Amino acid sequence: MLRSCAMRLRTLGATPARRPGAARVWNHPGLLCFLLPERLFSSEKDTHKDYALPNPSWTKDLRLLFDQFMKRCEDGSWKRLPSYRQNPAQALQEFQTRFVDSKFKKENHMSKAQQFSRSFEEGLGFEYVMFYNSVEKRMVCLFQGGLHLQGVPGFVHGGAIATVVDITTGLCAIAEGVAMTANLNIDYKKPIPLLSVVVVNSQLQKIEGRKLFISCTIQSIDEKTLYTEATALFIKLDPDKPLT
Amino acid sequence: MLRSCAMRLRTLGATPARRPGAARVWNHPGLLCFLLPERLFSSEKDTHKDYALPNPSWTKDLRLLFDQFMKRCEDGSWKRLPSYRQNPAQALQEFQTRFVDSKFKKENHMSKAQQFSRSFEEGLGFEYVMFYNSVEKRMVCLFQGGLHLQGVPGFVHGGAIATVVDITTGLCAIAEGVAMTANLNIDYKKPIPLLSVVVVNSQLQKIEGRKLFISCTIQSIDEKTLYTEATALFIKLDPDKPLT
Repeated sequence: MLRSCAMRLRTLGATPARRPGAARVWNHPGLLCFLLPERLFSSEKDTHKDYALPNPSWTKDLRLLFDQFMKRCEDGSWKRLPSYRQNPAQALQEFQTRFVDSKFKKENHMSKAQQFSRSFEEGLGFEYVMFYNSVEKRMVCLFQGGLHLQGVPGFVHGGAIATVVDITTGLCAIAEGVAMTANLNIDYKKPIPLLSVVVVNSQLQKIEGRKLFISCTIQSIDEKTLYTEATALFIKLDPDKPLT
Repeated sequence: MLRSCAMRLRTLGATPARRPGAARVWNHPGLLCFLLPERLFSSEKDTHKDYALPNPSWTKDLRLLFDQFMKRCEDGSWKRLPSYRQNPAQALQEFQTRFVDSKFKKENHMSKAQQFSRSFEEGLGFEYVMFYNSVEKRMVCLFQGGLHLQGVPGFVHGGAIATVVDITTGLCAIAEGVAMTANLNIDYKKPIPLLSVVVVNSQLQKIEGRKLFISCTIQSIDEKTLYTEATALFIKLDPDKPLT
Protein backbone atom coordinates (compact mmCIF):
# COMPACT_ATOMS: atom_id res chain seq x y z
CA MET A 1 0.00 0.00 0.00
CA LEU A 2 2.84 2.36 -0.51
CA ARG A 3 4.63 2.75 -3.80
CA SER A 4 5.08 5.66 -5.97
CA CYS A 5 4.77 7.14 -2.59
CA ALA A 6 4.17 10.61 -1.68
CA MET A 7 4.51 13.18 0.97
CA ARG A 8 3.02 16.57 1.46
CA LEU A 9 4.66 18.39 4.29
CA ARG A 10 3.06 21.64 3.29
CA THR A 11 -0.04 22.47 1.33
CA LEU A 12 0.38 23.84 -2.14
CA GLY A 13 -1.16 27.26 -2.68
CA ALA A 14 -4.56 27.18 -4.35
CA THR A 15 -3.59 29.69 -7.01
CA PRO A 16 -1.70 28.33 -9.99
CA ALA A 17 0.92 31.06 -9.99
CA ARG A 18 3.48 30.59 -7.25
CA ARG A 19 3.58 33.45 -4.82
CA PRO A 20 6.86 34.54 -3.27
CA GLY A 21 7.48 32.26 -0.34
CA ALA A 22 4.80 29.75 -1.32
CA ALA A 23 5.48 26.04 -1.63
CA ARG A 24 7.32 24.47 -4.53
CA VAL A 25 6.60 21.06 -5.96
CA TRP A 26 9.37 18.62 -5.30
CA ASN A 27 9.49 15.28 -7.05
CA HIS A 28 11.79 12.98 -5.16
CA PRO A 29 12.89 9.39 -4.58
CA GLY A 30 9.54 7.90 -3.81
CA LEU A 31 9.22 10.76 -1.44
CA LEU A 32 7.38 13.27 -3.52
CA CYS A 33 7.06 16.34 -1.46
CA PHE A 34 5.75 19.80 -1.39
CA LEU A 35 8.32 21.72 0.62
CA LEU A 36 8.81 25.33 1.47
CA PRO A 37 11.51 26.89 -0.68
CA GLU A 38 13.87 27.62 2.15
CA ARG A 39 13.94 23.94 3.07
CA LEU A 40 14.42 22.59 -0.42
CA PHE A 41 16.68 25.20 -1.87
CA SER A 42 19.33 25.44 0.77
CA SER A 43 22.39 23.21 0.96
CA GLU A 44 20.28 20.33 -0.33
CA LYS A 45 20.12 22.07 -3.67
CA ASP A 46 23.84 21.81 -4.16
CA THR A 47 24.09 18.12 -3.41
CA HIS A 48 21.28 16.98 -5.67
CA LYS A 49 21.16 17.05 -9.42
CA ASP A 50 17.82 17.82 -11.01
CA TYR A 51 17.21 15.02 -13.53
CA ALA A 52 14.11 16.58 -15.04
CA LEU A 53 16.12 18.76 -17.41
CA PRO A 54 17.36 18.07 -20.95
CA ASN A 55 20.52 16.00 -21.34
CA PRO A 56 22.38 14.76 -24.46
CA SER A 57 20.37 11.52 -24.53
CA TRP A 58 17.10 13.34 -25.08
CA THR A 59 15.79 13.00 -28.60
CA LYS A 60 14.65 15.95 -30.65
CA ASP A 61 11.03 15.01 -29.96
CA LEU A 62 11.51 15.13 -26.21
CA ARG A 63 13.31 18.45 -26.37
CA LEU A 64 10.58 20.00 -28.50
CA LEU A 65 7.87 18.84 -26.14
CA PHE A 66 9.87 20.05 -23.17
CA ASP A 67 10.17 23.50 -24.74
CA GLN A 68 6.43 23.60 -25.44
CA PHE A 69 5.57 22.83 -21.84
CA MET A 70 8.14 25.27 -20.50
CA LYS A 71 6.34 27.97 -22.46
CA ARG A 72 3.09 26.97 -20.76
CA CYS A 73 4.85 27.48 -17.44
CA GLU A 74 5.50 31.13 -18.17
CA ASP A 75 2.05 32.31 -17.05
CA GLY A 76 2.13 30.07 -13.99
CA SER A 77 -0.65 27.75 -15.14
CA TRP A 78 1.80 24.84 -15.37
CA LYS A 79 4.79 24.00 -13.22
CA ARG A 80 7.78 21.85 -14.10
CA LEU A 81 8.64 19.42 -11.30
CA PRO A 82 12.31 18.97 -10.51
CA SER A 83 13.36 15.38 -9.85
CA TYR A 84 16.18 13.91 -7.79
CA ARG A 85 17.82 10.59 -7.11
CA GLN A 86 18.17 10.60 -3.36
CA ASN A 87 16.25 11.89 -0.36
CA PRO A 88 17.54 14.92 1.50
CA ALA A 89 18.28 13.73 5.02
CA GLN A 90 15.87 16.13 6.68
CA ALA A 91 12.89 15.20 4.49
CA LEU A 92 13.66 11.53 4.94
CA GLN A 93 13.73 11.91 8.70
CA GLU A 94 10.44 13.78 8.74
CA PHE A 95 8.75 11.17 6.61
CA GLN A 96 9.97 8.33 8.79
CA THR A 97 8.99 10.10 11.98
CA ARG A 98 5.47 10.68 10.78
CA PHE A 99 4.66 7.57 8.81
CA VAL A 100 7.05 4.68 9.35
CA ASP A 101 6.91 2.16 12.16
CA SER A 102 10.00 2.21 14.40
CA LYS A 103 11.11 -1.29 13.41
CA PHE A 104 11.92 -0.06 9.91
CA LYS A 105 14.08 2.85 11.02
CA LYS A 106 17.14 0.95 12.15
CA GLU A 107 18.80 0.35 8.81
CA ASN A 108 21.60 2.83 8.25
CA HIS A 109 22.34 1.50 4.74
CA MET A 110 19.10 3.17 3.64
CA SER A 111 21.10 6.36 3.10
CA LYS A 112 22.46 4.64 -0.01
CA ALA A 113 19.02 3.92 -1.40
CA GLN A 114 17.99 5.55 -4.67
CA GLN A 115 14.70 6.40 -6.31
CA PHE A 116 13.91 3.52 -8.64
CA SER A 117 12.97 5.61 -11.65
CA ARG A 118 16.18 7.67 -11.40
CA SER A 119 18.61 4.83 -10.80
CA PHE A 120 19.84 4.47 -14.37
CA GLU A 121 22.70 6.14 -16.15
CA GLU A 122 21.86 8.98 -18.48
CA GLY A 123 19.74 7.84 -21.40
CA LEU A 124 19.60 4.16 -20.50
CA GLY A 125 16.55 4.12 -18.26
CA PHE A 126 13.67 6.45 -17.51
CA GLU A 127 14.17 9.84 -19.12
CA TYR A 128 11.24 12.01 -18.13
CA VAL A 129 10.01 15.34 -16.94
CA MET A 130 6.68 16.15 -15.33
CA PHE A 131 4.47 19.21 -15.48
CA TYR A 132 1.56 19.93 -13.16
CA ASN A 133 -1.54 22.06 -13.62
CA SER A 134 -3.09 22.67 -10.21
CA VAL A 135 -6.34 24.11 -11.59
CA GLU A 136 -7.01 21.15 -13.86
CA LYS A 137 -5.54 18.75 -11.27
CA ARG A 138 -3.60 17.18 -14.09
CA MET A 139 -0.07 15.81 -14.30
CA VAL A 140 1.70 15.34 -17.64
CA CYS A 141 4.84 13.24 -17.96
CA LEU A 142 7.00 13.39 -21.08
CA PHE A 143 8.74 10.04 -21.23
CA GLN A 144 11.49 8.44 -23.30
CA GLY A 145 12.33 4.81 -22.52
CA GLY A 146 16.04 3.92 -22.71
CA LEU A 147 17.67 0.73 -23.95
CA HIS A 148 17.84 -0.81 -20.47
CA LEU A 149 14.07 -0.81 -20.10
CA GLN A 150 13.56 -3.55 -22.64
CA GLY A 151 10.80 -6.14 -22.39
CA VAL A 152 9.94 -7.76 -25.70
CA PRO A 153 12.93 -7.09 -27.97
CA GLY A 154 12.73 -3.52 -29.20
CA PHE A 155 9.95 -2.41 -26.86
CA VAL A 156 9.57 -0.99 -23.36
CA HIS A 157 8.95 -3.54 -20.59
CA GLY A 158 5.47 -3.72 -19.05
CA GLY A 159 7.00 -3.19 -15.61
CA ALA A 160 8.72 -0.03 -16.79
CA ILE A 161 5.43 1.25 -18.18
CA ALA A 162 3.72 0.43 -14.87
CA THR A 163 6.44 2.45 -13.17
CA VAL A 164 5.77 5.47 -15.34
CA VAL A 165 2.05 5.15 -14.65
CA ASP A 166 2.76 4.89 -10.91
CA ILE A 167 5.01 7.92 -10.67
CA THR A 168 2.74 10.11 -12.80
CA THR A 169 -0.50 9.23 -11.03
CA GLY A 170 1.37 9.32 -7.73
CA LEU A 171 2.43 12.89 -8.21
CA CYS A 172 -1.09 13.79 -9.28
CA ALA A 173 -2.38 12.24 -6.05
CA ILE A 174 -0.04 13.89 -3.61
CA ALA A 175 -1.15 17.33 -4.61
CA GLU A 176 -4.11 16.37 -2.39
CA GLY A 177 -2.10 15.00 0.54
CA VAL A 178 0.42 12.37 1.58
CA ALA A 179 -0.78 9.30 -0.30
CA MET A 180 0.36 5.89 -1.45
CA THR A 181 -0.69 3.55 -4.23
CA ALA A 182 -3.35 1.03 -3.28
CA ASN A 183 -4.22 -0.23 -6.76
CA LEU A 184 -2.97 0.01 -10.34
CA ASN A 185 -5.10 -1.38 -13.15
CA ILE A 186 -3.24 -1.17 -16.45
CA ASP A 187 -4.41 -2.05 -19.96
CA TYR A 188 -1.52 -2.52 -22.36
CA LYS A 189 -2.98 -1.73 -25.76
CA LYS A 190 0.05 -1.29 -27.98
CA PRO A 191 3.77 -1.84 -27.45
CA ILE A 192 5.92 1.27 -26.94
CA PRO A 193 9.13 1.17 -29.02
CA LEU A 194 12.35 1.79 -27.11
CA LEU A 195 13.71 5.34 -27.47
CA SER A 196 10.38 6.70 -28.67
CA VAL A 197 8.81 9.63 -26.82
CA VAL A 198 5.31 9.33 -25.39
CA VAL A 199 3.01 11.58 -23.39
CA VAL A 200 1.57 10.35 -20.11
CA ASN A 201 -1.56 12.16 -19.00
CA SER A 202 -2.81 11.76 -15.47
CA GLN A 203 -5.98 13.29 -14.06
CA LEU A 204 -7.56 13.34 -10.61
CA GLN A 205 -11.10 12.02 -11.11
CA LYS A 206 -12.62 12.06 -7.65
CA ILE A 207 -11.96 11.97 -3.93
CA GLU A 208 -13.90 9.80 -1.49
CA GLY A 209 -12.69 10.22 2.07
CA ARG A 210 -9.02 9.14 2.05
CA LYS A 211 -9.35 7.57 -1.43
CA LEU A 212 -8.02 9.35 -4.49
CA PHE A 213 -9.06 8.05 -7.91
CA ILE A 214 -6.73 8.90 -10.79
CA SER A 215 -6.93 8.07 -14.49
CA CYS A 216 -3.99 7.78 -16.84
CA THR A 217 -3.27 7.38 -20.54
CA ILE A 218 -0.06 7.00 -22.52
CA GLN A 219 -0.23 8.30 -26.07
CA SER A 220 2.02 9.10 -28.98
CA ILE A 221 3.00 12.74 -29.43
CA ASP A 222 0.45 13.18 -32.23
CA GLU A 223 -2.21 11.54 -30.02
CA LYS A 224 -3.02 9.08 -32.80
CA THR A 225 -1.78 6.03 -30.90
CA LEU A 226 -3.10 5.04 -27.49
CA TYR A 227 -0.47 2.80 -25.96
CA THR A 228 -1.78 2.36 -22.44
CA GLU A 229 -4.84 3.10 -20.34
CA ALA A 230 -4.82 2.84 -16.58
CA THR A 231 -6.57 3.73 -13.36
CA ALA A 232 -4.93 4.22 -10.00
CA LEU A 233 -6.26 4.31 -6.48
CA PHE A 234 -4.26 6.12 -3.84
CA ILE A 235 -4.95 6.25 -0.11
CA LYS A 236 -4.02 9.23 1.99
CA LEU A 237 -1.67 8.23 4.76
CA ASP A 238 -2.64 8.51 8.39
CA PRO A 239 0.19 9.47 10.78
CA ASP A 240 -1.62 7.45 13.47
CA LYS A 241 -1.24 4.29 11.37
CA PRO A 242 2.47 3.93 10.53
CA LEU A 243 3.64 1.75 7.65
CA THR A 244 4.36 -1.81 8.70
CA MET B 1 0.00 -5.31 -25.39
CA LEU B 2 3.44 -6.74 -25.15
CA ARG B 3 5.43 -6.52 -22.00
CA SER B 4 6.95 -9.09 -19.85
CA CYS B 5 7.05 -10.60 -23.20
CA ALA B 6 7.34 -14.14 -24.12
CA MET B 7 8.31 -16.50 -26.80
CA ARG B 8 7.87 -20.17 -27.22
CA LEU B 9 9.79 -21.48 -30.15
CA ARG B 10 9.28 -25.03 -29.07
CA THR B 11 6.65 -26.68 -26.93
CA LEU B 12 7.67 -27.84 -23.50
CA GLY B 13 7.21 -31.55 -22.90
CA ALA B 14 4.00 -32.48 -21.09
CA THR B 15 5.75 -34.61 -18.53
CA PRO B 16 7.32 -32.76 -15.59
CA ALA B 17 10.63 -34.57 -15.80
CA ARG B 18 12.74 -33.35 -18.69
CA ARG B 19 13.52 -36.06 -21.18
CA PRO B 20 16.85 -36.15 -22.95
CA GLY B 21 16.63 -33.74 -25.84
CA ALA B 22 13.41 -32.12 -24.66
CA ALA B 23 13.03 -28.38 -24.34
CA ARG B 24 14.47 -26.32 -21.53
CA VAL B 25 12.88 -23.24 -20.08
CA TRP B 26 14.80 -20.11 -20.90
CA ASN B 27 14.07 -16.87 -19.12
CA HIS B 28 15.50 -14.04 -21.14
CA PRO B 29 15.49 -10.27 -21.69
CA GLY B 30 11.83 -9.85 -22.28
CA LEU B 31 12.22 -12.70 -24.64
CA LEU B 32 11.28 -15.61 -22.49
CA CYS B 33 11.76 -18.63 -24.56
CA PHE B 34 11.50 -22.33 -24.58
CA LEU B 35 14.39 -23.45 -26.71
CA LEU B 36 15.84 -26.76 -27.63
CA PRO B 37 18.97 -27.45 -25.62
CA GLU B 38 21.30 -27.43 -28.57
CA ARG B 39 20.22 -23.90 -29.43
CA LEU B 40 20.47 -22.46 -25.97
CA PHE B 41 23.51 -24.26 -24.73
CA SER B 42 25.86 -23.73 -27.59
CA SER B 43 28.15 -20.74 -28.01
CA GLU B 44 25.42 -18.54 -26.54
CA LYS B 45 26.02 -20.16 -23.22
CA ASP B 46 29.53 -18.83 -23.00
CA THR B 47 28.65 -15.24 -23.75
CA HIS B 48 25.76 -14.89 -21.32
CA LYS B 49 25.92 -14.94 -17.57
CA ASP B 50 23.07 -16.67 -15.78
CA TYR B 51 21.80 -14.15 -13.20
CA ALA B 52 19.42 -16.57 -11.49
CA LEU B 53 22.15 -18.03 -9.31
CA PRO B 54 23.35 -16.96 -5.83
CA ASN B 55 25.75 -14.02 -5.64
CA PRO B 56 27.33 -12.23 -2.64
CA SER B 57 24.44 -9.76 -2.40
CA TRP B 58 21.93 -12.51 -1.66
CA THR B 59 20.82 -12.54 1.96
CA LYS B 60 20.78 -15.70 4.03
CA ASP B 61 17.00 -15.89 3.60
CA LEU B 62 17.25 -15.89 -0.18
CA ARG B 63 19.99 -18.52 -0.19
CA LEU B 64 18.00 -20.80 2.11
CA LEU B 65 14.91 -20.54 -0.06
CA PHE B 66 16.98 -21.12 -3.17
CA ASP B 67 18.43 -24.29 -1.66
CA GLN B 68 14.97 -25.53 -0.72
CA PHE B 69 13.67 -25.09 -4.24
CA MET B 70 16.76 -26.63 -5.77
CA LYS B 71 16.01 -29.73 -3.73
CA ARG B 72 12.51 -29.78 -5.21
CA CYS B 73 14.11 -29.77 -8.64
CA GLU B 74 15.91 -33.03 -8.02
CA ASP B 75 12.92 -35.22 -8.92
CA GLY B 76 12.11 -33.08 -11.95
CA SER B 77 8.82 -31.71 -10.61
CA TRP B 78 10.28 -28.20 -10.48
CA LYS B 79 12.73 -26.50 -12.81
CA ARG B 80 14.97 -23.54 -12.10
CA LEU B 81 14.85 -20.99 -14.91
CA PRO B 82 18.17 -19.45 -15.93
CA SER B 83 18.01 -15.72 -16.61
CA TYR B 84 20.11 -13.47 -18.82
CA ARG B 85 20.58 -9.82 -19.58
CA GLN B 86 20.69 -9.78 -23.36
CA ASN B 87 19.07 -11.62 -26.23
CA PRO B 88 21.09 -14.14 -28.20
CA ALA B 89 21.21 -12.85 -31.75
CA GLN B 90 19.53 -15.89 -33.24
CA ALA B 91 16.56 -15.87 -30.87
CA LEU B 92 16.15 -12.14 -31.35
CA GLN B 93 16.09 -12.53 -35.10
CA GLU B 94 13.53 -15.31 -34.96
CA PHE B 95 11.27 -13.32 -32.69
CA GLN B 96 11.41 -10.27 -34.91
CA THR B 97 10.81 -12.28 -38.04
CA ARG B 98 7.73 -13.88 -36.62
CA PHE B 99 6.12 -11.15 -34.56
CA VAL B 100 7.49 -7.66 -35.25
CA ASP B 101 6.42 -5.33 -38.01
CA SER B 102 9.22 -4.47 -40.43
CA LYS B 103 9.28 -0.78 -39.50
CA PHE B 104 10.63 -1.65 -36.05
CA LYS B 105 13.50 -3.78 -37.33
CA LYS B 106 15.75 -1.04 -38.63
CA GLU B 107 17.36 0.06 -35.41
CA ASN B 108 20.81 -1.45 -35.08
CA HIS B 109 21.35 0.07 -31.61
CA MET B 110 18.85 -2.49 -30.32
CA SER B 111 21.74 -4.90 -29.96
CA LYS B 112 22.72 -2.81 -26.92
CA ALA B 113 19.32 -3.18 -25.29
CA GLN B 114 19.05 -5.00 -21.99
CA GLN B 115 16.31 -6.80 -20.14
CA PHE B 116 14.82 -4.27 -17.74
CA SER B 117 14.76 -6.52 -14.68
CA ARG B 118 18.42 -7.52 -15.18
CA SER B 119 19.84 -4.06 -15.92
CA PHE B 120 21.10 -3.31 -12.42
CA GLU B 121 24.45 -4.01 -10.86
CA GLU B 122 24.68 -6.95 -8.51
CA GLY B 123 22.52 -6.49 -5.44
CA LEU B 124 21.20 -3.02 -6.30
CA GLY B 125 18.15 -3.96 -8.32
CA PHE B 126 16.08 -7.06 -8.91
CA GLU B 127 17.69 -10.11 -7.36
CA TYR B 128 15.50 -13.07 -8.18
CA VAL B 129 15.26 -16.63 -9.33
CA MET B 130 12.24 -18.45 -10.73
CA PHE B 131 11.10 -22.03 -10.47
CA TYR B 132 8.39 -23.63 -12.60
CA ASN B 133 6.14 -26.59 -11.97
CA SER B 134 4.64 -27.69 -15.27
CA VAL B 135 2.06 -30.03 -13.69
CA GLU B 136 0.68 -27.39 -11.34
CA LYS B 137 1.17 -24.67 -14.00
CA ARG B 138 2.71 -22.57 -11.29
CA MET B 139 5.67 -20.18 -11.30
CA VAL B 140 7.42 -19.17 -8.09
CA CYS B 141 9.79 -16.21 -7.96
CA LEU B 142 12.09 -15.68 -4.98
CA PHE B 143 12.73 -11.94 -4.91
CA GLN B 144 14.99 -9.56 -3.01
CA GLY B 145 14.63 -5.85 -3.79
CA GLY B 146 17.90 -3.88 -3.84
CA LEU B 147 18.55 -0.32 -2.68
CA HIS B 148 18.02 1.17 -6.14
CA LEU B 149 14.41 0.00 -6.26
CA GLN B 150 13.25 2.48 -3.66
CA GLY B 151 9.83 4.10 -3.70
CA VAL B 152 8.73 5.43 -0.33
CA PRO B 153 11.92 5.71 1.72
CA GLY B 154 12.90 2.26 2.93
CA PHE B 155 10.45 0.33 0.77
CA VAL B 156 10.30 -1.17 -2.72
CA HIS B 157 8.75 1.04 -5.41
CA GLY B 158 5.29 0.14 -6.73
CA GLY B 159 6.65 0.07 -10.26
CA ALA B 160 9.34 -2.41 -9.23
CA ILE B 161 6.69 -4.61 -7.63
CA ALA B 162 4.62 -4.39 -10.81
CA THR B 163 7.70 -5.49 -12.72
CA VAL B 164 8.13 -8.56 -10.54
CA VAL B 165 4.45 -9.40 -11.00
CA ASP B 166 4.80 -8.95 -14.75
CA ILE B 167 7.85 -11.17 -15.18
CA THR B 168 6.49 -13.92 -12.93
CA THR B 169 3.04 -14.09 -14.47
CA GLY B 170 4.61 -13.63 -17.89
CA LEU B 171 6.75 -16.70 -17.52
CA CYS B 172 3.75 -18.62 -16.24
CA ALA B 173 1.82 -17.58 -19.35
CA ILE B 174 4.39 -18.44 -21.96
CA ALA B 175 4.45 -22.05 -20.92
CA GLU B 176 1.20 -22.07 -22.94
CA GLY B 177 2.51 -20.18 -25.96
CA VAL B 178 4.04 -16.90 -27.12
CA ALA B 179 2.07 -14.34 -25.16
CA MET B 180 2.19 -10.73 -24.05
CA THR B 181 0.67 -8.81 -21.17
CA ALA B 182 -2.70 -7.24 -21.92
CA ASN B 183 -3.66 -6.27 -18.38
CA LEU B 184 -2.17 -6.08 -14.89
CA ASN B 185 -4.43 -5.37 -11.92
CA ILE B 186 -2.39 -4.98 -8.76
CA ASP B 187 -3.53 -4.46 -5.18
CA TYR B 188 -0.76 -3.11 -2.97
CA LYS B 189 -1.68 -4.27 0.50
CA LYS B 190 1.48 -3.75 2.52
CA PRO B 191 4.80 -2.09 1.75
CA ILE B 192 7.75 -4.40 1.07
CA PRO B 193 10.91 -3.30 2.93
CA LEU B 194 14.04 -2.93 0.81
CA LEU B 195 16.44 -5.90 1.04
CA SER B 196 13.76 -8.20 2.44
CA VAL B 197 13.03 -11.47 0.66
CA VAL B 198 9.53 -12.27 -0.53
CA VAL B 199 7.91 -15.15 -2.39
CA VAL B 200 5.95 -14.44 -5.57
CA ASN B 201 3.46 -17.13 -6.48
CA SER B 202 1.89 -17.16 -9.92
CA GLN B 203 -0.74 -19.59 -11.12
CA LEU B 204 -2.44 -20.17 -14.47
CA GLN B 205 -6.18 -19.98 -13.72
CA LYS B 206 -7.86 -20.52 -17.07
CA ILE B 207 -7.49 -20.27 -20.83
CA GLU B 208 -10.16 -18.82 -23.11
CA GLY B 209 -9.12 -18.87 -26.75
CA ARG B 210 -5.97 -16.75 -26.95
CA LYS B 211 -6.53 -15.32 -23.46
CA LEU B 212 -4.51 -16.58 -20.50
CA PHE B 213 -5.67 -15.61 -17.00
CA ILE B 214 -3.00 -15.69 -14.31
CA SER B 215 -3.20 -14.92 -10.59
CA CYS B 216 -0.33 -13.73 -8.44
CA THR B 217 0.47 -13.09 -4.78
CA ILE B 218 3.53 -11.73 -3.01
CA GLN B 219 4.00 -12.97 0.53
CA SER B 220 6.57 -13.02 3.28
CA ILE B 221 8.64 -16.19 3.62
CA ASP B 222 6.56 -17.36 6.59
CA GLU B 223 3.38 -16.63 4.57
CA LYS B 224 2.03 -14.50 7.41
CA THR B 225 2.16 -11.25 5.48
CA LEU B 226 0.37 -10.74 2.18
CA TYR B 227 2.08 -7.81 0.50
CA THR B 228 0.48 -7.83 -2.93
CA GLU B 229 -2.35 -9.50 -4.82
CA ALA B 230 -2.66 -9.29 -8.59
CA THR B 231 -4.26 -10.69 -11.68
CA ALA B 232 -2.77 -10.69 -15.14
CA LEU B 233 -4.25 -11.21 -18.57
CA PHE B 234 -1.97 -12.36 -21.36
CA ILE B 235 -2.83 -12.72 -25.04
CA LYS B 236 -1.17 -15.30 -27.22
CA LEU B 237 0.57 -13.65 -30.13
CA ASP B 238 -0.49 -14.24 -33.67
CA PRO B 239 2.32 -14.30 -36.27
CA ASP B 240 -0.17 -12.93 -38.81
CA LYS B 241 -0.64 -9.81 -36.70
CA PRO B 242 2.82 -8.34 -36.10
CA LEU B 243 3.46 -5.89 -33.26
CA THR B 244 3.01 -2.27 -34.28
